[in-house]
Amino acid sequence: MIQQQYFLGIDGGGTKCKARLESLNGELLGEGLSGPSNPAQSAETAYNSVNAAAMQALKEAGLPANALSQVHACLGLAGVNIPAYREIAEKWQLPFASTMITTDLHIACAGAHGGSEGAILITGTGSSAFASVNDVHTCIGGHGFPLGDKAGGAWLGWRAISHTLEAMDALQPVCDFTEAVCQQLNVITPEDIVAKALHYRSGDYAALAPLVLDFAKQNNAGAQAIINEGTVYLTKMLTRLQALDARRITMIGGLASYWSSQIPDTIQRLLSPPLCSPEYGAVSLARQAFKEA
Amino acid sequence: MIQQQYFLGIDGGGTKCKARLESLNGELLGEGLSGPSNPAQSAETAYNSVNAAAMQALKEAGLPANALSQVHACLGLAGVNIPAYREIAEKWQLPFASTMITTDLHIACAGAHGGSEGAILITGTGSSAFASVNDVHTCIGGHGFPLGDKAGGAWLGWRAISHTLEAMDALQPVCDFTEAVCQQLNVITPEDIVAKALHYRSGDYAALAPLVLDFAKQNNAGAQAIINEGTVYLTKMLTRLQALDARRITMIGGLASYWSSQIPDTIQRLLSPPLCSPEYGAVSLARQAFKEA
Repeated sequence: MIQQQYFLGIDGGGTKCKARLESLNGELLGEGLSGPSNPAQSAETAYNSVNAAAMQALKEAGLPANALSQVHACLGLAGVNIPAYREIAEKWQLPFASTMITTDLHIACAGAHGGSEGAILITGTGSSAFASVNDVHTCIGGHGFPLGDKAGGAWLGWRAISHTLEAMDALQPVCDFTEAVCQQLNVITPEDIVAKALHYRSGDYAALAPLVLDFAKQNNAGAQAIINEGTVYLTKMLTRLQALDARRITMIGGLASYWSSQIPDTIQRLLSPPLCSPEYGAVSLARQAFKEA
Repeated sequence: MIQQQYFLGIDGGGTKCKARLESLNGELLGEGLSGPSNPAQSAETAYNSVNAAAMQALKEAGLPANALSQVHACLGLAGVNIPAYREIAEKWQLPFASTMITTDLHIACAGAHGGSEGAILITGTGSSAFASVNDVHTCIGGHGFPLGDKAGGAWLGWRAISHTLEAMDALQPVCDFTEAVCQQLNVITPEDIVAKALHYRSGDYAALAPLVLDFAKQNNAGAQAIINEGTVYLTKMLTRLQALDARRITMIGGLASYWSSQIPDTIQRLLSPPLCSPEYGAVSLARQAFKEA
């Protein structure tokens, strides 16, 4: 009797880990959700999260634990773009029949294009792009805030604060936008802002991003200047993805719908909607790896 | 018999502390040099540095330790623009007849204008401005990198790295400038840069500033764009100092001569050369406080 084969996709990020288990013919059998799974933050936590999410999916599928030996897994993990963390993840003792380790960008791209090749531009707290063309992978941006990640939420919030400080210094006009920034930060003086931002992480800056979008919509000059700078950067990113001959280009992430409305029409026309989730993309990559093996 | 009065000026910064001791009629009696004296970094170290520099100046003047009770001091300290650190410094038990605590910016301004009022624009590792007009003090900028301190050395180096990462992502042209940045950083990939910059402090970024100036001189487009952005900011700062009706405006700091050559002629014409040192400025403020008392 030939044993049944299962395909597991793992989407492992800095805050959560999602699992999707499918049968050989593509039927969704079960899903799982656990905690942080970025090996660059904590390899042990990431290992445990991957196992927990996989076990949940297996349980939901009504399969016994020993079925893990019939599971072909693809783990798309944040942080493994850095060789040292990829090595750590590749050394993990996992219970699966086979395990493929790749980046969260790769599975998100495969998911966005329904398991096929293409390119993605992600704008959320950060920003980055990924293209898969004829098995060649290209990563663009995503170097982390504040060196890179232009047009991401953290960058927007940081530019809003920087602009507000200049307004408080009378180098820019004080306006509804800069006053709204002070109000949201609950500060009065520049010193208050500096003291508050001293321990800010990306997520704290990103909390100000909606304000920038709102005031840009209201034609506030300061907010619009920030949006224009972000738009120029993202247009360059998309032009680059086009130059790479990506079959399909998709914008994903929390700011994708906003930014796609800002970029020039000629570039907007290149975009296709996302088709499936990153964990679906991971399953399809597991399936491809199994076929090629 | 009326006791002789002495005037002590202290210039206390993040790396060193300078002291200058003068007689009632303005004769230089002695100088002192000690270590870090920014109370925001370490209040105890700062306290010890101030005392050590003062004692050195006294010793060089050939005065006994009990002459400290005839010394009127002005301490210009980095960090005391923040109220909490000013309070700490104001509670110090110091051996002087009288002690005035003010900011490093205030004494630098008084020094640059030979003890009179005026305004200064400082560009070194960071950037900031200060104006003293009719006893009203205005601080502009200096909010710390990367929120503020535009056109400072750290900002220049950071923009150089950010530009180089975009060139490596093929979003900007790779050129002599971006290759020189990689060479100075001793890196090959974007990941190398990101890993290296992870623990960078302002001084590390500022080490790249000379490259930006060199390549801007050679008309490199990337370097010139950075310089143009810095020039626009500094021009706004100087225009603001002019609007404050500062009697004299002076640029000081390691990048002052470079930036003063970049700003528009109409603004350049407003500038006067620095007259004296910050510790001289501190002595003159101590003298004024004594007269007014």
